[in-house]
Amino acid sequence: MSDREMLKCDVVAISDTGMVAPGVGTFTYGLRGIACMEAKIHGPAIDLHSGIFGGAIANPVTAIARLTATLHDAEGRVMIDGFYDGVRPIADWERKAWAELGDGDAEMLELTGSPALFGEPGYTERERRWARPTAEVNGIGGGYQGEGSKTVIGREAFVKLSFRLVPDQHPDLVLKRAAEHLRAHLPKGVRLEITPGHTGMPYLMDPHSALGTAAQRALKQVFGEKTALIREGGSIPIVQAFKDVLNADTLLLGLALPDCQAHAPNENFPIENFVAGVRLNQALLAELA
Amino acid sequence: MSDREMLKCDVVAISDTGMVAPGVGTFTYGLRGIACMEAKIHGPAIDLHSGIFGGAIANPVTAIARLTATLHDAEGRVMIDGFYDGVRPIADWERKAWAELGDGDAEMLELTGSPALFGEPGYTERERRWARPTAEVNGIGGGYQGEGSKTVIGREAFVKLSFRLVPDQHPDLVLKRAAEHLRAHLPKGVRLEITPGHTGMPYLMDPHSALGTAAQRALKQVFGEKTALIREGGSIPIVQAFKDVLNADTLLLGLALPDCQAHAPNENFPIENFVAGVRLNQALLAELA
Repeated sequence: MSDREMLKCDVVAISDTGMVAPGVGTFTYGLRGIACMEAKIHGPAIDLHSGIFGGAIANPVTAIARLTATLHDAEGRVMIDGFYDGVRPIADWERKAWAELGDGDAEMLELTGSPALFGEPGYTERERRWARPTAEVNGIGGGYQGEGSKTVIGREAFVKLSFRLVPDQHPDLVLKRAAEHLRAHLPKGVRLEITPGHTGMPYLMDPHSALGTAAQRALKQVFGEKTALIREGGSIPIVQAFKDVLNADTLLLGLALPDCQAHAPNENFPIENFVAGVRLNQALLAELA
Repeated sequence: MSDREMLKCDVVAISDTGMVAPGVGTFTYGLRGIACMEAKIHGPAIDLHSGIFGGAIANPVTAIARLTATLHDAEGRVMIDGFYDGVRPIADWERKAWAELGDGDAEMLELTGSPALFGEPGYTERERRWARPTAEVNGIGGGYQGEGSKTVIGREAFVKLSFRLVPDQHPDLVLKRAAEHLRAHLPKGVRLEITPGHTGMPYLMDPHSALGTAAQRALKQVFGEKTALIREGGSIPIVQAFKDVLNADTLLLGLALPDCQAHAPNENFPIENFVAGVRLNQALLAELA
C-alpha cells in the first residue's frame, strides 16, 4: 500500500489558525504562501578604518540599506517588477464580509502597540494582511553592533527577506524576480550574494462548497449563529501539499485568540477553547458523516 | 601654576599618522574631524509574526534601511542639506602634490581588497579621503540576526553613523543638520530616536610655515630628498584642542605604513621605523633648536 493510499481522505481539518474574537466561530478558507531569501553584500576584504578609507571605498552597510530601500515605495507598495502579476483580486463578498467584522484598525493598533498603521494604499488593514502580498524585511545587519561608536567600514552586510504570497502567485517565480530586482538595483562598488530559502504555496478553498458549509454548521453549533469567514496572513505550506498530493481540501478551524502572541514571548491559549475544540471536532464529524 | 602654563610650548610633535610608502618621509599637515551619531527606529511594542501582521504595520528594519538610503545619492555624494557648506576647496598646489604621489587607485584596491573604488565624483581617491567630508554608515542592525529565516517584524532597528569633516565644517552643526535630515526623511508609521556621540574638529596647518619647513628638513635628513606633503582622513581630535588651548601647531610625523591594518586584525609596524623614528626626533629637535 503506497503512502498516498494510506493517507487517502475526503478532507483534512487543522486547528492552527485563529478566531477573530473570543467566542466568535471562525472559518479560515485561505492562507498566504511564503518565499524566503537572504542577500549578502561583500565589499573590502577586511573591516577598514573609516577615517583612513572613508570616501574612496563603497561601504557594504550603506549598500545593503540602499538596496533594501528599493523594495518598497514610500507608501508600502512592493516595487519588484511583476511582483503583483497574477494576484487574484479580492471578491466583493469577501470585502463585505471582512468589513462587517468591525473596526480592524483600532484592534490592530492595540494588539501591536505600533505608533500607526501603514501599508499598501487602497486596502483595509484586513485586506492587506489576508489577501495582498508583502515583501517583509525580517532582519538586517552589518558593521559595528555594540554600544557607542566604532569608526569602521564593515566588510559585509546582510538582509533577510520573506515574501507573503496570495493566489495565484508562485513562490519560485517571486524569488526569481526578487533576485533579478536585487541584481538590477545593486549599488556600485560591491558584490552581491543571494541565497534562496524555504517556500510555501498560498492556499484558497471555496467556503461555500459542501465541505465548507459543513464546517460552518459545526462552528455554529459550538459558537452560535455568527461565523466569521476569513483568510489569514500566515502560511501553512502543507495545506497546499494536501491539495496537490491527496486532492483533499483542508478545513482551517482555528481557536487561537488575536492576542495569542504567536511565535513571541508570552504566547497563550485560552483554557475554554480546549473544551470548545473538543465539541467542535464532535460536531464536525457529525456534519461530515 | 595653571595647567595652561605648565603645558606651554612652541609646537607639538605626534607620530600617529602614516607614511605614503616605505622609506618616503611624510609630513601630514591636515586631519579630518569627526562627528558620531546613532539613530534608532521604534515600531511595534513587541516583535511581531510577519505573516499575521505583515502588510499592515510599518517595519522598523525596512524603515532604517529607507532612512539610511537617503544619506547619499547613487554616486556617493552626501545628501544632507548644507552638509558641504563651508568646505574649504582643495588648493591647486595640494592637488598637484598629491597627484605626484603616483597612482593611488591601484594601491587602494590592493590595500582594501574592494571590488572597485567608489566615491564623490570630481575628486581623486586621495582628495576624497584627505580633503572631502563623508557620511559613513558604521553599523546597522535590526530583526533576526541568526542563520536562515525567522519571519518576524522586529520592534526596533538602529544605524550608527560617523561624519568625517574637513576645514571649515563644525561637527556640532553637522550633527544638527544630520538630525534634521533624519527627522525630515523619517518613513511613516515609526518613531525616531537620535543619540549624538563624540566629536572632533578638523585640523589644518600651513606646511610652508617656519615650523612646517623645519619638520620637512628633519624628514629629509632621515628619509632622503623627497618628502610627501599630505593630509590624512582620520581624526586626532586633541590636535585642534592643542591649537585652541595652547595656541600650538602640531607636527604630524607618522611612521605607519599603508598596509598597517590600523584598528583591524594583524595591525603591524615595521621594526626599521622604530630606528628611523629615533633619528627623526633627534633631527627635529636640532632643526627646531
